[in-house]
Amino acid sequence: MSKSFIEYGPECNFPIQNLPYGVFSTASNSKQRIGVAIGAVILDLSQIKDLFNGAILSECNDVFTEETLNKFMALGRPAWKEARATLQRLLAADEPTLRDNADLRERAFVPQSSAAMHVPASIGDYTDFFSSKYHATNTGTMFRGPDNALQPNWLHLPVAYHGRASSVVISGTPVRRPCGQSKPEDKPPVFAACKLMDFELEMAFFVGPGNKLGEPIPVGSAHEHIFGMVMMNDWSARDIQKWEYVPLGPFLGKNFATTVSPWVVTMDALEPFLVANNAQDPTPLPYLQHDDPFNFDISITAAVKGAEMQEPAVVSRSNFKHMYWSMKQQLAHHTVTGCNAQPGDLMGTGTLSGPTQENYGCMLELCWKGTKEVDLGNGNIRKFLKDGDTVILSGHCQGEGYRVGFGESVGTITPALI
Amino acid sequence: MSKSFIEYGPECNFPIQNLPYGVFSTASNSKQRIGVAIGAVILDLSQIKDLFNGAILSECNDVFTEETLNKFMALGRPAWKEARATLQRLLAADEPTLRDNADLRERAFVPQSSAAMHVPASIGDYTDFFSSKYHATNTGTMFRGPDNALQPNWLHLPVAYHGRASSVVISGTPVRRPCGQSKPEDKPPVFAACKLMDFELEMAFFVGPGNKLGEPIPVGSAHEHIFGMVMMNDWSARDIQKWEYVPLGPFLGKNFATTVSPWVVTMDALEPFLVANNAQDPTPLPYLQHDDPFNFDISITAAVKGAEMQEPAVVSRSNFKHMYWSMKQQLAHHTVTGCNAQPGDLMGTGTLSGPTQENYGCMLELCWKGTKEVDLGNGNIRKFLKDGDTVILSGHCQGEGYRVGFGESVGTITPALI
Repeated sequence: MSKSFIEYGPECNFPIQNLPYGVFSTASNSKQRIGVAIGAVILDLSQIKDLFNGAILSECNDVFTEETLNKFMALGRPAWKEARATLQRLLAADEPTLRDNADLRERAFVPQSSAAMHVPASIGDYTDFFSSKYHATNTGTMFRGPDNALQPNWLHLPVAYHGRASSVVISGTPVRRPCGQSKPEDKPPVFAACKLMDFELEMAFFVGPGNKLGEPIPVGSAHEHIFGMVMMNDWSARDIQKWEYVPLGPFLGKNFATTVSPWVVTMDALEPFLVANNAQDPTPLPYLQHDDPFNFDISITAAVKGAEMQEPAVVSRSNFKHMYWSMKQQLAHHTVTGCNAQPGDLMGTGTLSGPTQENYGCMLELCWKGTKEVDLGNGNIRKFLKDGDTVILSGHCQGEGYRVGFGESVGTITPALI
Repeated sequence: MSKSFIEYGPECNFPIQNLPYGVFSTASNSKQRIGVAIGAVILDLSQIKDLFNGAILSECNDVFTEETLNKFMALGRPAWKEARATLQRLLAADEPTLRDNADLRERAFVPQSSAAMHVPASIGDYTDFFSSKYHATNTGTMFRGPDNALQPNWLHLPVAYHGRASSVVISGTPVRRPCGQSKPEDKPPVFAACKLMDFELEMAFFVGPGNKLGEPIPVGSAHEHIFGMVMMNDWSARDIQKWEYVPLGPFLGKNFATTVSPWVVTMDALEPFLVANNAQDPTPLPYLQHDDPFNFDISITAAVKGAEMQEPAVVSRSNFKHMYWSMKQQLAHHTVTGCNAQPGDLMGTGTLSGPTQENYGCMLELCWKGTKEVDLGNGNIRKFLKDGDTVILSGHCQGEGYRVGFGESVGTITPALI
């Protein structure tokens, strides 16, 4: 197994097999810059850009002096593979370039503990899909009954909505409980602080090269346009959402914050964890068909830590593999009208619920619309989230003796401004 | 009445009372730059930035050397008023600074006919409202019958959805007919070129200063955040939209193109055309209440010119004043959860249909869901749009002896890529 001169244990999220990209700054240097996580440190790519001397990147290693990953994302898979090969070589245990250059090591490595992380790309547009059949079935059952749980289009196309890009925030950003309009049963609507505050356990991918307006991305090459993935919490105000969403979909119920984890795990790092695509019945239309597996075994969890609690309690254990529609299908569908995707666009999975209750990915499902309590241990219970609650999403792939981890998406609810 | 040394007739869209902002380039200088329309020419603000010597702009006239209006939009109303006063003085008939400086005039004025126009701002997020009660009632009647035409929330809050910012294009950009999935009655879904291609006669405003995440914009000061307005065509693929939109709203049916007119007419130029707000029953919740009039008498039209036609045929004559929810209410509602608006965000009105058939603002209403034909004259008829059709939206306010005009949003449908 490949080893680095940087030391870490077998449960570390960031071994040499991972090498996720992020954007960070430090107290001593507030400029945002691109780094790669390895062990407990960050390799600052702006300090070693000249070491990217392969055929592609030697011509454009200025992408590593940018304040976001957009330009690197735009370069495409051959450049990403070249960068990964360079980084795996430079960080390998037997490679002296960095290992034995004390001055360069001093400049190029930063402890993760001393870095502030930033949203890794300038996000032009953010789209959220609804691609777990379990989640769609559960929420549909609650609101329309089991016979009409899935809407008639759901098995034919990846349902999605355009979300709000401006309020995508980095892990650690506090999330203020939103105020808004909701309608109590049999009474006129009221303005109030959200009463049914929820998280959604999601993942998301960043778009690499985009497509020209009017020229769809075919499903067969959609993977060439997918840079990498993060954990994502699509915070949801369920009472606001319920009243507002007909007929044009979620708007204020989800536009106040979306929290992403800072490290973008590349598709190359995820490749060893490919699993078979989910069977699709009925067979999708040809523009959505692909044979190559593009599903991944990624264990994900959501934990809640109330202000009164010592430790977070895991409330959901699920897996990315519960996606019914693959990311390739999502991107092909999104662009089939000619809609132009752009480097840095963010596309969420929707809540990644699985088949059993322990896999349910949001409080709405876990408390089944408020009809039961979620046990956080030591007498702490919840239906929806309270002020002071911290929600921690995390995920990883388990290799033999190593992990490819995503780290965490963390957010704490602060009281409403009312 | 105020006169300029630049000559124009009484029906000109761009008299000295208007002075809308846009972004243009020319064959001899491809750099995008900011200009103001006056008569048939553009005043290039990058050439006269040093003449903005008022208290605010003398400190920051570099905003006029930007490639978009975002930084100027961000400055806020006092700066916008100062810029307008400076421009009205510099362009006045009795002011020699520009008038008598042949060299400066040569550099600073560009014929509109020789300029290429660009989307005037970098649009972070684009939101489209649904604020004509006539349009909401008409479309609701078609799909749910007259007794359930308006959804229960419609009279309580400005319904909206997040749209796709990447595919907002400038007037003149061809619009390719999208392909996508739709479902014929009693048959499985099919992949095909859109059969029910439509326009929507809308207007939109650009956001000026934004708000911090978590800190709503109160309705009482929302006008301080509204920079100006354009005509907007929210192209719609009705067959795709109908099949996909439950339960998360329009997605592909509207994400392939949205066409804006190039000149942003400021709210100060529109002030003489203020009219009373529409009565609202029931009374909105306090966070949506404002007493000051913020409704405007703006005549708008939509015309269609088929490839086989000599002249465009006006198919809709409507007015901005048919908005039920004011732009102040829209912005206050949008941000009441703490969602952060940003300079350059674009917010559409929704289709501005009025009470009578001649005011209907889209083909869906004009052909009443395909049940009748729309007469374009000389034997030309339509239900929805054909390839080669050009749709021209335009609008103006009529003053005494002058017009404050918006110019046009123009787009021609090109054949699907199939």
